[in-house]
Amino acid sequence: MVQSIITLSQDKIPQQWYNIQADLKKLPDPPLHPATKKPIGPDDLAPIFPMELIKQEVTMERFVAIPEDILDIYRLWRPTPLVRAYRLEEALATPARIYFKNESVSPPGSHKPNTAVAQAYFNKKEGFNRIATETGAGQWGSALSFACNLFDIECIVYMVKVSYQQKPYRRSLIEVWNGKIYASPSEQTETGRKILAEDPDSPGSLGMAISEALEETISHPGTKYALGSVLNHVLMHQTVIGLEAKEQMKSVGEYPDVIIGCIGGGSNFAGLAFPFAKDKINGKDIDIIAIEPAASPSITKGLYSYDFGDLSGLTPLLKMYTLGHGFIPPKIHAGGLRYHGMAPLVSAMAKQKLINVNAIQQLETFESGLLFARTQGIVPAPETTHAIAEVIRQAKKCKETGTEKTILFNFSGHGHFDLSAYDDYLAGRLSNYQYPKELIDAAMAQLPKID
Amino acid sequence: MVQSIITLSQDKIPQQWYNIQADLKKLPDPPLHPATKKPIGPDDLAPIFPMELIKQEVTMERFVAIPEDILDIYRLWRPTPLVRAYRLEEALATPARIYFKNESVSPPGSHKPNTAVAQAYFNKKEGFNRIATETGAGQWGSALSFACNLFDIECIVYMVKVSYQQKPYRRSLIEVWNGKIYASPSEQTETGRKILAEDPDSPGSLGMAISEALEETISHPGTKYALGSVLNHVLMHQTVIGLEAKEQMKSVGEYPDVIIGCIGGGSNFAGLAFPFAKDKINGKDIDIIAIEPAASPSITKGLYSYDFGDLSGLTPLLKMYTLGHGFIPPKIHAGGLRYHGMAPLVSAMAKQKLINVNAIQQLETFESGLLFARTQGIVPAPETTHAIAEVIRQAKKCKETGTEKTILFNFSGHGHFDLSAYDDYLAGRLSNYQYPKELIDAAMAQLPKID
Repeated sequence: MVQSIITLSQDKIPQQWYNIQADLKKLPDPPLHPATKKPIGPDDLAPIFPMELIKQEVTMERFVAIPEDILDIYRLWRPTPLVRAYRLEEALATPARIYFKNESVSPPGSHKPNTAVAQAYFNKKEGFNRIATETGAGQWGSALSFACNLFDIECIVYMVKVSYQQKPYRRSLIEVWNGKIYASPSEQTETGRKILAEDPDSPGSLGMAISEALEETISHPGTKYALGSVLNHVLMHQTVIGLEAKEQMKSVGEYPDVIIGCIGGGSNFAGLAFPFAKDKINGKDIDIIAIEPAASPSITKGLYSYDFGDLSGLTPLLKMYTLGHGFIPPKIHAGGLRYHGMAPLVSAMAKQKLINVNAIQQLETFESGLLFARTQGIVPAPETTHAIAEVIRQAKKCKETGTEKTILFNFSGHGHFDLSAYDDYLAGRLSNYQYPKELIDAAMAQLPKID
Repeated sequence: MVQSIITLSQDKIPQQWYNIQADLKKLPDPPLHPATKKPIGPDDLAPIFPMELIKQEVTMERFVAIPEDILDIYRLWRPTPLVRAYRLEEALATPARIYFKNESVSPPGSHKPNTAVAQAYFNKKEGFNRIATETGAGQWGSALSFACNLFDIECIVYMVKVSYQQKPYRRSLIEVWNGKIYASPSEQTETGRKILAEDPDSPGSLGMAISEALEETISHPGTKYALGSVLNHVLMHQTVIGLEAKEQMKSVGEYPDVIIGCIGGGSNFAGLAFPFAKDKINGKDIDIIAIEPAASPSITKGLYSYDFGDLSGLTPLLKMYTLGHGFIPPKIHAGGLRYHGMAPLVSAMAKQKLINVNAIQQLETFESGLLFARTQGIVPAPETTHAIAEVIRQAKKCKETGTEKTILFNFSGHGHFDLSAYDDYLAGRLSNYQYPKELIDAAMAQLPKID
């Protein structure tokens, strides 16, 4: 009997998140205040985040305990299955062994609730009952409304307009879970109204939507803000993925040679990779690869520099790979990867060569996603197809060289709400996209100057 | 630690299907030839089904071995989890323990691939490379295209037009898996053209779509037909659900007092219930309840009589509860439950009082589905909300009487492709529906006369 699904019993759900800051030899430069350009302190962040999350952002503890109330909700879908992709291997005739961690089994269909539940919990614990956020493809917005609903918190979501139009069922899902949703740019905020006045047809961007959510937070007392990626505490909450995967790989006598995840803000990649990166820091030989879309190539084409996280410059300045906060990416279907920057921790690890980064074009990712759906069954989210494209490249390389590598990737989400993207691909309506160098140069010219 | 997900290791996937015909004290009357009205033999069915499935339709073997190639595909998602619905119990403040078998984790999102894979396999084995079928809400059509794709079989799906329009992502999904799909009534068949000539706005019905798929089969040599419910072999393939559930319940020291499933053709209900009904036949005290929609109440308002399975009278006559093969149900969102008849085995068991049947209205089912989504997270398919509505009724009864019953239901599918139904419900656009007695009487008047 060939075992393809490797489960883990619920008493093995990690009791602690892993904080890679404790193990990195060199930490990222600290966030700076947007006005003073001096390192920010907890008080600067207190208006938008609960204190516990601010502490988690900077803690140097290697492991942070997961409260029982959060574990109790994780148990609605965790541990997620680790799956051996036999049929994909067979289709590729590769000697590689391909495993994926299936985060698509959560109710919102992605890894996002791992942090959404934690953030909702810590807000509730400090008495905050209203949270504003933004969402790209809708994975994060639906995950946060799912989590807020369980804690009886009001959830307001600004969804990037192009995705709002492409993925109408994401709106429905958010409303099923009692969330309130606006297409961004919207008429709800000054930021939104200003953008619409200049360009009524603006497709929106994550940078814009973040500005709107932050304005909503600041202008409504008692409202806090939640971010679905980028920040240290968000990445840390996702490490349950890698911690579980390690146990599951071990249970079948495996350890990965190659680890792959797609990156938009960096959180699903970090969630799988960081617990293994710990071993790499300690000398283990692993190839850890992050894949970004060629249409929004923050690391492969961006600068490593301080920049704002949002369009309007409301956020602290983060030291990261960035295409410039004014960057508006093309309307690719992988809406969750349309971000101008990259998590400071992921950026620092790329800079330090702890991880490798490739950019892949849209047509190759959809071709890869389709092969996956036709061999393994599950239809991947457009974001996830980026990881799959690299998996297939690696597996083919193994075939050419006759190397039996063990490849592990994060199946970050399913594509049930993204099927119009597959329609477009199958009808030949999609194309590749190279963001013109002049436009990147223009966005770069707006980078804030730090002395 | 409260365990809410009860897994089963892959070496425990059932190796045999359970055939309830071996245990029923009284078998349903045999199918009759539509023209001669005499019992049909294998040769009568040979033009539309492969011989192995015809044999399975009438076998009296209690257990039928599942071929290794089918098990190998089942292992893409089976065993499915058994889940304790703690949060739903808590919301209802009920002393009842509520469990559900989560069949929504399959790639097409429902129980349907359990039989789709088997049917594709037996067709392939006998050399048939083209299969036609019909689908209501799209669960069956997508499951069959998923299965056919894995065996390199061409799959042609006639989808009831109202569902085709309500659920556009089902079409996408079928195309992702290489299937070909038409909205029924279509211009592809004589049946379809005739219906469209009389009523260009016909919303379609399962009866019509079956006629179109059968015409496609008969008029294209080498094409076979596949049915997603109703027939004995289809129900038998679904018994992996109940066989697994029994093992999983046993592993936590439980046995259900009440078993609940929704019924359209009867297959998901049968899949869960039959292995337990075996125990009931042997004296065990269990309450087995099937739920049908009040808008298409085959058992609670229909007659137990011979009738055709399709609109045009192409199928054999089946002895079943029926609203008349001319019945066109209202456009409720639970498209998978819009069928005029009921599986002969389920019908016979209802007649013999082995199972109880209730009809529930649409508004109660959506209210129940929403409560489920807001407590347990997963959004149920409109069909599945019928089972959940009865679960909630039972759990409330347990609260009133202080009885600690163990309730088990089949979570037959998720509602990711049915979110427009929730939109309609949340916007107050849905209403209850009582099919007028005169219309049922008119449909009944068309029942074929059997001497």
